[in-house]
Amino acid sequence: MEIQPSLFVKMVMNSWETQCASLLEIMDRLTDEQLMAETAPGRNTGQYIVGHLTAITDGMIPLLGFGEKLFPDLEKLFVELPDKSGQPLPSISTLKTCFQRVNDRLSEQMQQLTPEAWFSKHEAISDEDFSRQPHRCKLNIIINRSNHMAYHVGQLVFLTR
Amino acid sequence: MEIQPSLFVKMVMNSWETQCASLLEIMDRLTDEQLMAETAPGRNTGQYIVGHLTAITDGMIPLLGFGEKLFPDLEKLFVELPDKSGQPLPSISTLKTCFQRVNDRLSEQMQQLTPEAWFSKHEAISDEDFSRQPHRCKLNIIINRSNHMAYHVGQLVFLTR
Repeated sequence: MEIQPSLFVKMVMNSWETQCASLLEIMDRLTDEQLMAETAPGRNTGQYIVGHLTAITDGMIPLLGFGEKLFPDLEKLFVELPDKSGQPLPSISTLKTCFQRVNDRLSEQMQQLTPEAWFSKHEAISDEDFSRQPHRCKLNIIINRSNHMAYHVGQLVFLTR
Repeated sequence: MEIQPSLFVKMVMNSWETQCASLLEIMDRLTDEQLMAETAPGRNTGQYIVGHLTAITDGMIPLLGFGEKLFPDLEKLFVELPDKSGQPLPSISTLKTCFQRVNDRLSEQMQQLTPEAWFSKHEAISDEDFSRQPHRCKLNIIINRSNHMAYHVGQLVFLTR
């Protein structure tokens, strides 16, 4: 039996798209007021989680070799700093627009990658490490980021009534 | 460039093992009392989530063609019924043991599957559907279940202090 690499790419893309669709669906369903609330007492707000997922997804653009981040300022606010840092945060509607733009850009560029390119190294691993660990390819980023998104979607669900 | 199917399998196994390790780590870190609590006001308890993940993981055994479930009774309590159904639930320590046994059994059997077998159909899809949708293979189950586990681990984290 010959296994087509394109089949594997499709499985991983479906998994990623399912997580993005869940996030978009839940952001759409929650009011701004609900998203401003803490997901559980003393835990991150919906606003912080949406900003965090936007920053992490934006970071996939350079990691996959697709160019520069669209919103580099989000990294400091939503990855380096914790929630309630005292820094002013972008509004919910701004964050939703940022996520949508990052997601659109990524989808467009992902669709153009050949299966062979998906199995090439990502930008944060050296040639030397990649030659020893060839599973640390671009596609592996998508597998890991899908799990990461699912983790936070499981928390955002607590904001629904 | 030739892409080895064993490389896809390794990527997906790493993702699954990472999620199982996170779950085991958090179950180990939380006291029984913490696990009995709700993850957020009015939401599922840690006990229910651990039972749910055990039941779903146990269900992977027949789905992957590895034989019968080890704990078939968990399906009703932790998948069909919601939390706080009024049915008596197994203790936390019983559930932890069940998860460990299911995880050990699965790991052992997964390691024996060849890459070709991973790309064969799982047990819940017909030959006809599989011929049209060949990405719905055994390996795809692992991708989806990794995301599912990450989703609930994101909730269990709220029980930590």
